[in-house]
Parts: sequence; C-alpha cells; structure tokens
Amino acid sequence: MDPSFEAALKNAVRTIPDYPKPGIMFRDITTLLGDAGAFRRAVDALVHPYVGGKVDKIAGIEARGFILGGAVAHQLSAGFVPIRKKGKLPHRTVSVAYALEYGTDEIEMHADALVAGEKVVLVDDLVATGGTAEAAVKLLRGLGAEIVAACFIIDLPELGGAERLRAMDVEVRTLISYEGH
Amino acid sequence: MDPSFEAALKNAVRTIPDYPKPGIMFRDITTLLGDAGAFRRAVDALVHPYVGGKVDKIAGIEARGFILGGAVAHQLSAGFVPIRKKGKLPHRTVSVAYALEYGTDEIEMHADALVAGEKVVLVDDLVATGGTAEAAVKLLRGLGAEIVAACFIIDLPELGGAERLRAMDVEVRTLISYEGH
Repeated sequence: MDPSFEAALKNAVRTIPDYPKPGIMFRDITTLLGDAGAFRRAVDALVHPYVGGKVDKIAGIEARGFILGGAVAHQLSAGFVPIRKKGKLPHRTVSVAYALEYGTDEIEMHADALVAGEKVVLVDDLVATGGTAEAAVKLLRGLGAEIVAACFIIDLPELGGAERLRAMDVEVRTLISYEGH
Repeated sequence: MDPSFEAALKNAVRTIPDYPKPGIMFRDITTLLGDAGAFRRAVDALVHPYVGGKVDKIAGIEARGFILGGAVAHQLSAGFVPIRKKGKLPHRTVSVAYALEYGTDEIEMHADALVAGEKVVLVDDLVATGGTAEAAVKLLRGLGAEIVAACFIIDLPELGGAERLRAMDVEVRTLISYEGH
C-alpha cells in the first residue's frame, strides 16, 4: 500500500483510548465512513484487484461489515450475503460457533444464500484475532463457496487474525495496520 | 415506478408466511440482496433522483439499512452515518426513544456525525409503522441536518409509516409496496 494513502486513511480513523475497557485503543471507523472521500477511496482500494474479475457474492459480517460490504457489492456488481448473529435471519440457516474471550458465540447465514462453486469475497471493517472471520470462512466453505479473498480496512497484526486466515489458504487484503492494540 | 420493474424486484423478494409470528407475511430482502442484478437495479433506482445533486451524508438504520446505505453512499459519493441501537457506538452520542408494540426502544448516532446544514438521505430496507424512521428523522434534524429524502425498497402502506414521515415534511421514496402485511 502507498504509505501516503495509508496515512490519509489512518487520519480518517478515530482512536478512542480505553474503550470498551482500560488498555484497549479502539479504532473507530465511523469517522472514515462519514468522510465521503475517504470512504470512497477505501472501498475502491479494497476492491481494486477484483474489478473485472468474476466475483459472484460479497459476504459481509454484521454489523459494520454490512456497510462496507454493501458498497463493495455494488461496486463489483455482485450479490450481497449477510452473515449475522444467531437468530436474526428469517429462513433456514447454517451456523458455526466460535470462541470468545469468555464463552462462545455463533454466526449464521441462509443455507440457500449461495450455491457451490460461487466465488465469494468476505468483507469486514477490521481483523483482530480473526475468530469471527475464521467462522465465516468455515460457513462459506461449508456451502461450497470458493473464497477469493477476505478484505478488511484495518489489520491489528499483533492479534494474529490475518495470519490465522492465511493459514486456512485465504488471501487476506487490508489497507491500514496498527501495531499494538 | 414502472410496473414491470416493480414486478421484477418483487420477484426477487422472498415472502415467509407466519414469521416472526402467526399472521405476519415477512418480506425477506436477503434474496434480493443476493441477486446481483436486482441489488444493483434497486440501489440505482433508489438514488436516481439524487445523482448529480448535492447529498452530503447517507444515514443508514441498523442492520439491513447498513447494507443498502453503504451501497447508496458509495454510489452517490457521500459519507455514511450509522444509526444504531443503544450502546453500540463508541463515542459521544445523541439518542431518541420510540414506542414499540410493547415498551420502548432507543436509537443513537454520534453527536459529531454531521454538521448543521448538511443534506442527508435516510435509508432502510422497509418502512412499516415508521416508528424507527421517525426517530431517525428527529435524531438527524436535532443535529441540524436537512433531510433530502427517506428511501426504502419496500413500503407496507397499510401500516402508515410513509404517511407518517410525509406528515413530518419528509420526501419518501419507495420502490415496491405490498398491500396487507
């Protein structure tokens, strides 16, 4: 990534110290989303390698991944598939559980949201430990999707999420990264 | 709206009878979102009157309004402002409560998400009673926004939401409507 482009995007992200708990530097992308130029440049940079190629579906992870994923789907003229927290989708679903710091959580998608062989780009705003994204990859592959890439605006590399996805043979694309977290 | 266009879009919406409770015909737009052509045509038709005009921000209502709102913001080169359920935004917020069938709920946006005088289009997937959209209009106007329009893919006119918004002097744009609900 061009360092001045990364610096400009970082400039549009707001850092909130000690949120949601002491010691955490929360990277708030709502300021980037609200900045028309930064939002457009981020979306366009994220999808750049896939323009003109064949992507059938964008899978976005609730909730911030919906904002970015909707824009990416429109830009690539692809369909959009929502990956939601348990119990929010109205039709028959498939689900995958994943570990949290304490306990587990579960994400779901509609069982008929894609057909085997479709090419899918997974989208979320940020990759940290990668637990949710890993569960999403399992969900998508369970329905036979071919995962073209997983795209995030922000990478927190010390938390290892991008590496975890690459170890599953997923191409990972991120625009900006923060050391520390 | 061109009747054949409306029929094609309706065809992409899945109706789930008796969800979430007996007697309700749930209009599931995930099938429309997943259909690349229908999703693109719906977004393009929704924003058509505002292309080339000046829209500063798209406000999307959590969660399905995020998908559509992200696409609309990108298409209009506008910023995106998330309107979320209480307690989900990391910075200082303003909030408005609204009545549910039983009890009340509350939506929030960041207090610095827009500046007075900005032109805003409100986006959600569906307007039913209009309670959430009315609260969103109050939130946006409370920060001094000029509401250009409220856009929804689906209108359930018998529930009166679109009329309720028009009574607040909001231009309402919808693509398809279902009698009964």
